Order: sequence, then structure tokens, then C-alpha cells
Amino acid sequence: MTAATRSEHDLLGDRDVPADAYWGVHTLRATENFPITGTPISAYPHLIDALAAVKEAAALANEELGLLGPKKAAAIVAACQEIRDGALHDQFVVDVVQGGAGTSTNMNANEVVANRALELLGHAKGEYHHLHPNEDVNLGQSTNDVYPTAVKIATVFAVRGLLKAMSALQDSFARKAVEFRDVLKMGRTQLQDAVPMTLGQEFSAYAVMIDEDRSRLAEAVELIHEINLGATAIGTGLNAPAGYAEAARRHLAAITGLPLVTAANLVEATQDCGAFVQMSGVLKRIAVKLSKSCNDLRLLSSGPRAGLGEINLPPVQAGSSIMPGKVNPVIPEVVNQVAFEVIGNDVTITMAAEAGQLQLNAFEPIILHSLSESLTHLRAACLTLAERCVDGITANTEALRATVENSIGLVTALNPHIGYTAATDIAKEALATGRGVAELVLEKGLLPADTLAGLLRPEVLAGSGTAPAV
Amino acid sequence: MTAATRSEHDLLGDRDVPADAYWGVHTLRATENFPITGTPISAYPHLIDALAAVKEAAALANEELGLLGPKKAAAIVAACQEIRDGALHDQFVVDVVQGGAGTSTNMNANEVVANRALELLGHAKGEYHHLHPNEDVNLGQSTNDVYPTAVKIATVFAVRGLLKAMSALQDSFARKAVEFRDVLKMGRTQLQDAVPMTLGQEFSAYAVMIDEDRSRLAEAVELIHEINLGATAIGTGLNAPAGYAEAARRHLAAITGLPLVTAANLVEATQDCGAFVQMSGVLKRIAVKLSKSCNDLRLLSSGPRAGLGEINLPPVQAGSSIMPGKVNPVIPEVVNQVAFEVIGNDVTITMAAEAGQLQLNAFEPIILHSLSESLTHLRAACLTLAERCVDGITANTEALRATVENSIGLVTALNPHIGYTAATDIAKEALATGRGVAELVLEKGLLPADTLAGLLRPEVLAGSGTAPAV
Amino acid sequence: MTAATRSEHDLLGDRDVPADAYWGVHTLRATENFPITGTPISAYPHLIDALAAVKEAAALANEELGLLGPKKAAAIVAACQEIRDGALHDQFVVDVVQGGAGTSTNMNANEVVANRALELLGHAKGEYHHLHPNEDVNLGQSTNDVYPTAVKIATVFAVRGLLKAMSALQDSFARKAVEFRDVLKMGRTQLQDAVPMTLGQEFSAYAVMIDEDRSRLAEAVELIHEINLGATAIGTGLNAPAGYAEAARRHLAAITGLPLVTAANLVEATQDCGAFVQMSGVLKRIAVKLSKSCNDLRLLSSGPRAGLGEINLPPVQAGSSIMPGKVNPVIPEVVNQVAFEVIGNDVTITMAAEAGQLQLNAFEPIILHSLSESLTHLRAACLTLAERCVDGITANTEALRATVENSIGLVTALNPHIGYTAATDIAKEALATGRGVAELVLEKGLLPADTLAGLLRPEVLAGSGTAPAV
Amino acid sequence: MTAATRSEHDLLGDRDVPADAYWGVHTLRATENFPITGTPISAYPHLIDALAAVKEAAALANEELGLLGPKKAAAIVAACQEIRDGALHDQFVVDVVQGGAGTSTNMNANEVVANRALELLGHAKGEYHHLHPNEDVNLGQSTNDVYPTAVKIATVFAVRGLLKAMSALQDSFARKAVEFRDVLKMGRTQLQDAVPMTLGQEFSAYAVMIDEDRSRLAEAVELIHEINLGATAIGTGLNAPAGYAEAARRHLAAITGLPLVTAANLVEATQDCGAFVQMSGVLKRIAVKLSKSCNDLRLLSSGPRAGLGEINLPPVQAGSSIMPGKVNPVIPEVVNQVAFEVIGNDVTITMAAEAGQLQLNAFEPIILHSLSESLTHLRAACLTLAERCVDGITANTEALRATVENSIGLVTALNPHIGYTAATDIAKEALATGRGVAELVLEKGLLPADTLAGLLRPEVLAGSGTAPAV
Repeated sequence: MTAATRSEHDLLGDRDVPADAYWGVHTLRATENFPITGTPISAYPHLIDALAAVKEAAALANEELGLLGPKKAAAIVAACQEIRDGALHDQFVVDVVQGGAGTSTNMNANEVVANRALELLGHAKGEYHHLHPNEDVNLGQSTNDVYPTAVKIATVFAVRGLLKAMSALQDSFARKAVEFRDVLKMGRTQLQDAVPMTLGQEFSAYAVMIDEDRSRLAEAVELIHEINLGATAIGTGLNAPAGYAEAARRHLAAITGLPLVTAANLVEATQDCGAFVQMSGVLKRIAVKLSKSCNDLRLLSSGPRAGLGEINLPPVQAGSSIMPGKVNPVIPEVVNQVAFEVIGNDVTITMAAEAGQLQLNAFEPIILHSLSESLTHLRAACLTLAERCVDGITANTEALRATVENSIGLVTALNPHIGYTAATDIAKEALATGRGVAELVLEKGLLPADTLAGLLRPEVLAGSGTAPAV
Repeated sequence: MTAATRSEHDLLGDRDVPADAYWGVHTLRATENFPITGTPISAYPHLIDALAAVKEAAALANEELGLLGPKKAAAIVAACQEIRDGALHDQFVVDVVQGGAGTSTNMNANEVVANRALELLGHAKGEYHHLHPNEDVNLGQSTNDVYPTAVKIATVFAVRGLLKAMSALQDSFARKAVEFRDVLKMGRTQLQDAVPMTLGQEFSAYAVMIDEDRSRLAEAVELIHEINLGATAIGTGLNAPAGYAEAARRHLAAITGLPLVTAANLVEATQDCGAFVQMSGVLKRIAVKLSKSCNDLRLLSSGPRAGLGEINLPPVQAGSSIMPGKVNPVIPEVVNQVAFEVIGNDVTITMAAEAGQLQLNAFEPIILHSLSESLTHLRAACLTLAERCVDGITANTEALRATVENSIGLVTALNPHIGYTAATDIAKEALATGRGVAELVLEKGLLPADTLAGLLRPEVLAGSGTAPAV
Repeated sequence: MTAATRSEHDLLGDRDVPADAYWGVHTLRATENFPITGTPISAYPHLIDALAAVKEAAALANEELGLLGPKKAAAIVAACQEIRDGALHDQFVVDVVQGGAGTSTNMNANEVVANRALELLGHAKGEYHHLHPNEDVNLGQSTNDVYPTAVKIATVFAVRGLLKAMSALQDSFARKAVEFRDVLKMGRTQLQDAVPMTLGQEFSAYAVMIDEDRSRLAEAVELIHEINLGATAIGTGLNAPAGYAEAARRHLAAITGLPLVTAANLVEATQDCGAFVQMSGVLKRIAVKLSKSCNDLRLLSSGPRAGLGEINLPPVQAGSSIMPGKVNPVIPEVVNQVAFEVIGNDVTITMAAEAGQLQLNAFEPIILHSLSESLTHLRAACLTLAERCVDGITANTEALRATVENSIGLVTALNPHIGYTAATDIAKEALATGRGVAELVLEKGLLPADTLAGLLRPEVLAGSGTAPAV
Repeated sequence: MTAATRSEHDLLGDRDVPADAYWGVHTLRATENFPITGTPISAYPHLIDALAAVKEAAALANEELGLLGPKKAAAIVAACQEIRDGALHDQFVVDVVQGGAGTSTNMNANEVVANRALELLGHAKGEYHHLHPNEDVNLGQSTNDVYPTAVKIATVFAVRGLLKAMSALQDSFARKAVEFRDVLKMGRTQLQDAVPMTLGQEFSAYAVMIDEDRSRLAEAVELIHEINLGATAIGTGLNAPAGYAEAARRHLAAITGLPLVTAANLVEATQDCGAFVQMSGVLKRIAVKLSKSCNDLRLLSSGPRAGLGEINLPPVQAGSSIMPGKVNPVIPEVVNQVAFEVIGNDVTITMAAEAGQLQLNAFEPIILHSLSESLTHLRAACLTLAERCVDGITANTEALRATVENSIGLVTALNPHIGYTAATDIAKEALATGRGVAELVLEKGLLPADTLAGLLRPEVLAGSGTAPAV
């Protein structure tokens, strides 16, 4: 049915696009060129909103500078606002992994905004002589400043989501640190019994780790607020008049509510992916810590009878299709897997950043893809871990205390009083005979009974100056 | 509306599931526990088909050994065949990234097969006393043998798709190698002019690289045919009677048409992810070569006026929203990005494999996810590169020949005749003065004109013994 | 010869050590246990100095708190000062890659300090009843606070070396940015001709990149100043009396001149490797940028006749054993390789950090090894790149200007005046016919000659607001 | 003292080299250009031997083809034989990490061989008009075929060393598998108690893993036997006469005793690093398995009182400077660290391989460096693990059996007899009450006592068909 299409023209010739599509010929070609992941950019709503925000800010700046008439500007702004309100996201159809430094994403945005603005002006879609995707919507812009700017705005919002989820997880751990503050247990180094501590101290450490990681993430996201809008093609600002970069930044900051700043050197900013590499490096750090914490939770809850059995994770599903009654630490396990994914994504981002050449990095789409994945999966992992695991953890208090009383590691506390050499002999004998440290010390008359009892009091053993600091 | 749900029971208590759902309580809990990627396992049709094949093979083996009545067996087999024909895939709803070594995926499969089989037997969904997800569908099985077996079968089919795509790309390069066999050009080492070759030799090398990679991939996939079905929980085969492993393997081989073999040591096979690590390592190798080849294509086609300009990639879309007429090498660029992704995935898979503990690797879901992504994206990348780029490449033959004639690298061919030292002096003078090598050699009387002409014939320069070997 | 050895005793029994060795039985066993890399810790002089500083600070704190007599303290301090002055480094013989979280390194230090202190007190080596490696030198300490503290101090000093080298490289690039400020050239995106810029802008971007990386490195090293001295075995401070941590930190800060702070939560600090992961992530970022810059330098200097030939790197050695006169970009190439090494090391460090369990990370030795390698190799790479490459770069000014005048990319500047669509047609015709943009614009009467000339002035083309910002 | 130097000349001018140095001007410049790691190539004796072998083979081929006089050939051959016998290794002084695709290494070899050959012919060092490093020693060669060929030969010998060490480790594990064949224990999945097995089965799995990895390594090293000698600069064989490649390969195979083959397509072979990537991928696989096995050993030996305490690793050194009597699993820990290093090296090698451009990969030196490190450290790790850990492992047999008898996992064996649902109820009650599975089954009359006893016999529980297969 001829009526169902309209013809559009580009460098390579004419092509029919569906009559009701808001996207046009450039988008059409891109969908044909990049059948890679099957995931359209509409799956990244933060990015779509950010693209619309950039187009809106540019239109306002262009109007302010007299480069774009008020009617056109108003139509573009209205179209962008609709998109930011959630409309037309399904029109953003190019594959997220695409060649061309994001050109297809920018072209897709230009076309959707132009066609919606045309409608708002009372024209049909495709009547670009009234309002043109490149000459009007993209006025004063290049993919090379629009795309990284939009990616950065999307990243900032995704980071905020992660920060909140990390806070929730930190709070979970901190609550447990308080709950377990008096639960005495053996600390372990290199998986070998070391010296006593409290379970509260152990959980407090997890809370502190997350707190520190949040600080690092907050620092890293600061760098993401630096944009290169106004740089145009290579950072020289060709075709962007004086005052444009500043006006566009000002409008974009107002639209997004973000404290955006324009990079001091736009040539550098246009080719540089350093802020993304830094961000990914911090996400990797977070992944490392989360994974370590989950390894610990799985280890401490091992059992129920042939494991360490120190804590119990809340059961959330049957653990086995064959072993009745088995319950597995599936929540920490899924967090581990997200961590491995984030660490792999960091390598992808690193290679993409390294591969940039001369005035541009053509590989920003995979950076967007990998970074978004890391951010959203980490957020989900933190929330899931907090809500479905940490909040429900209980301690096997009595068993824990028994291991302390029975431990050889107690002998360390006697070091200052009987010396490392004598203490070593006690430890060896305790291990060989299965007897207790205190018993042997008394038998050998190394310390008087009351002195010994004083040295082995729980509060002494677990340290006094190290109460949970969160 | 009560009618819209049915109640199911598990270790943790009762839960309502939608009455029309083929999945049950275990699946329900898993969807609540793992809101991580939003991608259900139904997005991996090879995996769903493989799960159904495993369940079907197990039912046949159980029937054969007298453990499962023929009616139940027939119903399970029929349900599995429907799934393998494409039905009910939308019932596989658990998140692909999940804790628990694939337990939720296996439970989801058990429930869907059981409920469909119940229907076929004239019962309502959920009437598990007639046919039970765990006691009948999962009979003689454990997630720990079902899941890796299914992942392996899915992987084999995905590898076949990749091998075909690589063949297509190899053929594209090989055709160009023939087409360009007489196009003389300067070879380059370390980006500096080296000695002459033909463009055909250059493209032949790309074809040979892919050919070798295909051989490596074919070798790696052999290892994937080794399965651990019959191992049950930890490889000891508990609850799988004598003969079960062999019968199940035989049926599974028949159903899938694959030359499957049972691992010699099932305890080892159940905890080992070596075959996946090996496979991912080979995919990484393929990615490295593809990326290198694409880097070359982008470099050789740089220009149009300030670049090397040796070849022309077919234009597939306008390259810039701001620079009119610009056409970019977007197809090689997207292939580069897939390569970076595959290399990152290899790190993820490596970490997941390393994190396995004792009798099982709990992190196979992320291995499945990353490996599938690498396989399918590489396949898409190869096809796209062949069809939308390599097939349409043309050479700037005249310009290429001119650079050879004008080159200083020609002097290397005179080495055996005038010596490295004298040749170095000629090269230095040519570079300093801008004059030609031949001209200087003649002027200094180092060689007679006809000898020189003979040494500089194209066929001599480009080597004789290295005709395209593909 | 019996006289040449002395007998020492430990948990496992008696062993003979060379009579003149300052190290003892613990060190002996470690050298036997870890024949891994063949590189002793003495190859890390910053680490040896840092270990001595920690032992010295601990002795002063112990004396201050009345735990160690003044004679012993003075002997220990004197021994440590000798080591920090460069003496006895050859006695630090354990392999840098070792099991045990650095225990062997700490034991080696305890023994060397003790035996030297014994000598200073007039005793023979090995007469530990006068002054004991563990009971006196290691008093109030554990490997688990000593080793990470020493590694951090060593890291800070290595970072300072790298920062200086980066400054030197930044200055080199900045000088070239000034030198080339008027050299007009074509900018490139995606290796395709884009729009004009100056070579000065290009080099300025490299300088700015390094400047930003220096800022990130300076931020990351701040975190390294946080130590856990006083934590003892697991962070509870067992056996370290009240006031010890603060006194030891104060003395250590004074000895090293570093603004060290004690971690707020010592349990967390003792198990956490986050600061090292962060540091390595920043080194990876630096590596990415350096590698990208070197890729550019190699590309821009490609030729001499069949390459881009925009700049000339200073020749530093003959480039080929077979191709006379060939000169290769060997300095950028070696920097690329260091970058790849640093990126690989980051993965090693990441895995080591993730593998920590419960109260300690046992894998800090490989973190030390990899981090030190990254820091020292990057330092060497930066200095070499500055001195042997960037400082001597020259530009082919005339050829560069010619490519601008001949370029199709000029048409972008006409966009605002003739529109993207008309400009696209001009570009297509220029490419097809080999003619110039200006010529075609005039022929078609799209712009008056004087307007056109004004638009194509170099200072307009290269942008005005983007003068080198360094 | 003038007498102590001789003057040499190259492309860049004259330089003095020490009179007694066998290396010359090219080496001198390289040492100045690459002050990166401080590690000279002499630290890689396999490489030096391989370089000498290549030079010797080339001389014999050149003599055979009449290109090199018998006197010169004999002198070169004699010099090479001396080097292969261990002489002059200290003359190989260029840094292992160097720019230029190995040119400096090849030049260093050419100079040392030439100067030693000159001496053997009765000339002074530096009298290159009698016998020239490039014109005679390097005759018919290029760095681009010599260097990768030498690296491959060195790699083959290093792989052989690793294969032997892996065999030793496999044997250690296999001996323990036999020793522990009757030690019943609980198997674990996801760190939770699963079903019974024997400790012999567990150790057998480690042996099988290594056996499989050895097979993979043996396959990967096959690819390394393919060389490109005769390719010269870019694979076209320029300056290598007909028959040279075959003659050189034949002589090199005879000298080294290796079944070397010449690549079918020399252009491809000269630019391709695929065989190294493959090799590194297999080393990574080995590292993953070794690390997993060591994680298990550390976990199973955790304790002595608050851990799993299933096995005892032989104590090899005191474990703590503060905790008396503590013994740590330092040998597995050092193996873990080597594994992390190998995995990081794989990323380095991957990036170096990907960065190759056009006809050559300039980054082979870092590939050599990283690959050698991985090979030699893995070899040391395997030997150390076998000799200092696995050989001395003992089992806590009684305690292990008790955990089986006490376990809830026994209930899985009753599945086929009482059903998954009833078994789940038993498991829940056992867990809640602390009672035994058998006791509960009998109490509820689910099975007769003798049937139950039969089902719970150790040989049934641990499986019959899975005896150690190594």
C-alpha cells in the first residue's frame, strides 16, 4: 500500500519509510546497518530523555542567539518536552551498539523531534522544508557533542539510582552491625582461626566499605558533569556562534537540574573518554567489594551441618531440584555474578576508550551500553541483597561463642605476658592434644588464674577502641 | 478473582500463581528474587529448546529403565516436543542472571513441562499428584547435570551459527583477494612504508586468519559435546540408576543430532567450567583478529583526501549530522565494538569459572549469558561486515601503484645487490631530497639500468611464492 | 664448615642459617617455599625503606608507652635508620610473590632489624633472648597492619615519581602546542577528514589529558595515606595498648614526612584493598590515554611517502634489520606496550582484591608487585616519551595546509549559509569529480566570492574560542 | 681512555661502544631508548638460545644456496653454537620491553654473532667489512620473521617445562585420590551440604582437571610450531631466494629437534599473533582451574577449630608474626596469586595482539614478556604446590565420616523411595529439631529399618560408577 509510506532522501538516495514513523531515512539505514544486539536505544529511557533535553536546550540557545525563529524553536521545545514526559520513546529504534560514535542515535533523535515538531506546526511528517532534522533540530550541534553530553546526563541519573541503592544496603549492614554487636566470634585470616571479634564488627566493616565506595562514586560522578556541548565536530566549535556553548549549557542545566559545566578545552573534551573510564573503574571497585562481602556471607552461612554455620541467610526459594530441604545462598550468588559482569564491562570500556583516534572516539556506543549495564545491574544487585538477604540474617550466637572459648587463637592475647615463643609452644600442644589454651597455661603455671581470666574477657579480646563506626 | 489463581506449595509455604501460568511456585519465587537484568531466559531460544530436549531424553531413559510409566513418559515427551517446536517459550520467565547454578531455570522447565504434560493427560495445571515437576519431570536429574548439559547444547547450536557467518566473511575476503590480486601497493610495518605487496595478498591474509579461527572454534566446540547428564547433584550419580547416564545420553544425542559423549569422570565434569573458558578464549581470539582486520579497513580507507585512501568502503549511511557528504566506516566500527564486548565477556567468564567452589560452580548463569552474547553478537558482526562492507570494497588502483613507484622501500630489494650499508645511504638521500630510489642508484652507477629495472618488476617485488592460499 | 652457620628455631623445628646472614629461620623457610619469580623484595627499595620506617615508628611508640626499654628501642631505631640509608637491602631476600599476606616480608624485616640491632648492642646475630624479632621488633604489630602500611608508603613515593614524569611529558606536549599554534591541518573523526584545526590544538589536547590524569592520580594517592597501623591481626587492636595506634602513626608521619591518617574503622581497613583498586584504576586510565596519544603520534607520523606524513618523530635508532633507511616510531610503541601491561595488571589487582576473605586479604603481595610494576614502568614510559620523542617532533607545515585547502570538509563551514542539504550536494560532487569545494560553490552561485573567502579564513575554520588552554 | 672503545656507524651517525662489547651501535641505541623494565633479554635464556638457533639455521641455508661463503657460514655457525652452549648470554642487553617489534633484540643478536664470528675468523670486533651483522648474519632475514620464530621456539621449550610440572602435580593429586579413596565425606554445592562422596573422588577431580588442561596445552603448543622464517619483512619473502624458507626451516628443525612447519601463507603469518593469544587463553584456563583447586584446599583445611577442618595441609612455615602457633595455607595462596597474574597477562597479550596494524604486530615484545612470565610462574607454582603442599596432605577421616552420618543431605538418597515432597518435610524437621534423617524416617514409618540401612550404605551414597578415573 503506497499510502503507508513516505519517501525521504539522503546522501545515498531515496528510501521509503513507514508513513506513521517519526523516524526517517537516516534511522532506517541505521536499523539495517546494525542488526547486532536487537536492543533499541529506547531500552535506555535515561538516554532518550537526555537526548530530548539536549535538543531542547540547543533550540532555546539558538533562539536566544537569533539563529532559530521563535515558531520553530517553540515546536522543537514542545516536541522535546513530550519525549521527556515519556512520549514517542518507541520511535528510538536504532540498535544501542552501532558504528559511528552515536551518529545514528543523534540522527534518530533529530528525525523524531523534527517530525513531531512538524506535526505540532500543522505539517505532515517528512515535510522537512518547513523544519529540518539537521538544519533546525541539529542546528549548531554535531553528534560529537550531542551524544557524549546526552550519555553523561543519562549516566548521572543512573548513578543517582545506584547511590540510593548502596545507601539502602549500607543501612542494612549497619543495622545488623548494631544487632550483632555483642555476638562474640572467632576472626579469621587466611581462612585460619585468628583472634576473637564480634559479629557486629564484621558487619560494620561491610557497611563501612559501602560507605567509602559511595564517596568514591560521588567523586567520580562529579567529572561526568563536564560536557562538551558547543564543541561541534571536533571541539573547534565550527558553526556554533560565540555564546552558543554557554547558552546551551545554561539551558541544559536548567532543564535537567544538573550543575553542568563546559569543558575548558573542547578539543580535548571531544576526544576524551577519561570520565567514563574513571566511572567504570569505580564501579569495578564497588563490584570487587560487593563480591568479597557476598563471598563472606556465603562462607559464614555454609552448612547447615558440615559448614561454618555462623549465620543464617533467610531462605528465599528451594535450593535444589533433587536435594529436598536444601536452601542455597542464591541472593549473594547473583550479586557475585553481577560483580563479574561489571569487571568484564570495565575491560570492554577500557578497550573502547583506548581505541579512540585523533579528534574523536568512535566507540562511545559500546561504552554507553556497558556502563549502563553496570550501573543498572549493580543497583538491582544492591537492592536485592539488602531486601532479600541482609535484612533477614540471623546469628547462631551460642555456637559462635563456643568456638571462641575453644579456640587456640586465644593464646595471642597472652603474647605480651608470656612471650611469642612460650605462646607458640602452648599453641602447638593445644593443637596436638585437643586441649584448651587456658587449661594448659594454668597447668604450666605460666599465669595466675585470675590474671588469665581477666585477659580472656570478651570485651578485651574483641578490642575496645573499634566499636562500629558507621 | 479467585478463579484467576491456583495455590502451590514448596519448602517455604503456599503461594498463589496465575491460573493460566504453566510455571509454578518455584518460578514465581525466582522471578521475585532476581529482578536483575529484566531479560528472561525465553530470550535464549536455543537454551529453551535444549532444556526441553534434556527433559525429553531423561523421560525416555527413565521409561526405558522402568522408572517412569509409559503414560507419564509419553506426556512429558509430547510436552517437550511442543516446546522444541516453539510453543510455550513465553513461559520461561526467570531472569537469565540468577543465583543458584541454574536451579531456577531448571525448576522453571520442570514446572512448564509438568503442567503441559498434565494438560495432555487431561488434568488441570497444578495437579502435581498426577505428574510432579520434581518427582517425574526431574526424575534422575539435578540442576547440576541438567543445566550445564542444556547450556552446552545451546552453545553448540550458537557456535554453528557463528561458524557459518565466519565462512561467509572468509568468502567475502577471499573474493576480494582474487579481485585485487594484481593491485600493487606498499606494505607497511609499524605504520611506516615497508616493501611492496599486492592488495590481494593483504585481503588474502584476512581470509586466512578467519579460516584458522574457524579451525580453532571447531576444535573448541568438540569439548562442548562432553556432557555430565547422569551426574545428578555432585557427580556421584546418586539417584540415577545404573544405565541411566548412558540411556539419557543416547536419547539426547538422537533428539539433538549431536555426537554427545558422557564425561569419563562425572565428579570432575560437574564442577568444571573448563570447556566454557576454552570456548570463550577462542571467541576472544576471533574478536582480536576481527578487530585488527577492521582497524586495517578503517585505516586503509581513511580520507577521502587527507588519509591513506587506498580502498573505498561502500557508503551505507550519511556519516555526520553536521558535516555534509561525510561517510564513515561505521560497519567496521560496530565490529570493533562487538570485539571489545567479547573480550570483556571473556574476563567475566574467567572470573565466574574461577569462583567455583568444591563440587559445583554456582555461577554458570552468567557464563551462559556472557557466552551467548559473545556468540550471537560475533555472528551478527561477521555477517554485517561481509554483506555491508567487504563485499562492496573497491580499490584505488592507480594511486596505490604510484605510491610503490615513488617509495623508498624499493631500496630493500637492492640489498642483496648493493648491500645494506649502501642501500641505507640511498634511502637517506632519497628521503632528504625527495628524489626517487631508482634515479639515485642509476646516478651513482650502483647498478646498470636493465638490472635495476628487472629487480623492480612488480611480480618480483610482491613475491612469487605467496599467492593467496585460501 | 660448622662455623659458617648458626642454628635457629621456630614452630617447625631447628634450621641452620648462614652465620653472616641478618635474616633468620623464618626467612629461610620462605625462600624455600616461594621459588616463584626469582625477584627478591630488595628489588623494591621503596618497600624496604617503608618497612624500616614502620619498624622504627613502632619501636618509638612502644618506648613512649613504656613497653620497650630505651636500649632496645634505640638499637632498633638505629638499625632501621641504617636500612633507610640504604644498608642491608641485600638481606631482604624473600620472593616478592609469596603466600601469606606478606608475613614472610614482615618476618624478613623483623629478623634483619633484630640481628642488626643485636650487633649494635654488642651481641651476636641470633641471640634473640637479648632482642627478639617477634617479641621486640614486631611488638604491638602484626603482618596484617605492618605490611599494608609499608606497601602504602612505598606506593606514595612511587606515585610521586610518576607525577613528576607526567608533568615533564605534559610540558613537552604543551611546548609543542605553542610551537604548532599556527599550523593549520585537517581534523579527523573516525579516520575520515572532518574540519580544520591547528596542530597546536591537537597537541594541546594531549597536554590537557595528562593534566587531568595528574589530578585524578593526586586524588587517588590521598586515599593511600590512610593506614591501619595499630590494627594488629584483624583490626581489633589486640595486643596494641591504648594510644599505640596514634603514637605509631605520629612517629611514622614524622619519619616519612607523609600526612598519614589512621583509618576510622580498623577492622574494615585491615581487610580492604579498595585504595589499591582505585589507584590501579587510575593508572589504567592514564595508560588508556597515553596509549591513545601514542597511537595518534604513530598515525600522524606514518610514511614517509605512503602515510599521513603530518609530523616527524625524531629518529632514535635504525628501524629495520632488512629495510635500509627505515625509521620506526619505537618510542610510542614501547609506551603502548607499557599501557597494555598496566591494563593487564589492573585485572590482576582486581582479582586479588576480590579474592580477599573475611578479616584479611591474603593476596596483597601480588597487588604490591603489580602496582609497583605499573607505577615504575609508567614513569619510565612518560619520561622516555617526553625526552626521546615529543621534544623532537617537527611538523610538515606546508603539506598540512595544502590538505586543508584541498579538503571537502571545508563545506561544513558553509552549512549555516547554504544549508546541510545543498552542502551535501556540493560535497558529493567534489568527491566524484575531484574538484574543490570553493570552486563548485562559486560556479553554482551559492555564495559571493568575498563572502566565501571570509568564511574559509584559517582562523575562522580552526575556531577562535579554543586556544590551547594549558 | 680511547683504547677502551671502538667507533661504530649507523643511519644516525657514529657512536663509541665499549671495545670489549660484542654488541654494537644498534644495541647501544636501544639500551638508551628503552630504559623501561631494567630486565635485559638475557633473563630469557630460552629466547637467546632460540635466536642463536635461528641465526645458525639461516647461515646454513644461505650457505647451501650459495649466498654465503663457507668460511663466513662456519664462523657464524660456530658463534651460534657457543651461544647455545651458554656463552655470551650477558651480551644480550636490550630491555625485554622495547619498541619496534623486536628489532632491537634481532639487532643485538646480529651484532653479538657477528663480532664473535669475526673473532673466530681472526678479526677484531667491529671489523664489519669482513663479516657484517646485517649483510651476513641477518642475510635473507628480517626481524619480522626472525623474532617471532625465536619467540615461538622459546615458547615451545617453556611449555614443555610447564607440561612436566603439571604432570608432577597431577600425579600428586592422583596419589592422594587413591590414598583417600575410602574416606567418606559430605559433598557440597554452593557451599551448602549436598550429598556424600569420598575424599578420593574429590582429589581425583583435581587430577582429572590437570590432565585435561595438559591436553589443551599440548594442542595449543602444536600451533606454535608453525613459523614464518623466510617471510622477511612482510611475508612476501623479498630478498629470500626460492628454497630459502624451506632450507632454513629444515636446518632449524634439526638444530632444535622441533617439528617446525612453515606457514602456508607467510603474509598472514607475519602479522598474526593468533597462536600466542590461543596459548595465553589456555594458560588462563589452567590458571582458573589451579586457582579453583587452591581455593578448595584452603577451604577444606580451614580451622583448626573454627573451620571445616576436613584436611590438613603440611605446615611449611610459621604463619603469623603475632599469632603464635598459627599455620597458614601459604602454598595454595601463592598459587592463587600466580593465577591472578596469568589472567592479567592474558589481557595484556590480548590487547597487544589486537593492536597489530597492517603487515606486522609491533607489540610482540610485551607478548613475549607476558607469555614467558605466565609460563615460568605457572611452572614454579605447579611444582611448589605438588611438592610443598599436596604431597603432604592428610585427612581427618573420622570427623569427615561423622558429618556424613549427621547430615541432612542423606535424605536425597531416599527421594526415589519416599518422594521429593515427603523428603522435603523430613529435611525441614531435621533442620528445625537438630535430629537425624534416619531417625525421623523410621519414626514416621516411611521405610523399614533394613531398607533404610541399605540405602544409606557408604558405597551406595558415594556412587559406584565414578571411581577415580585417573
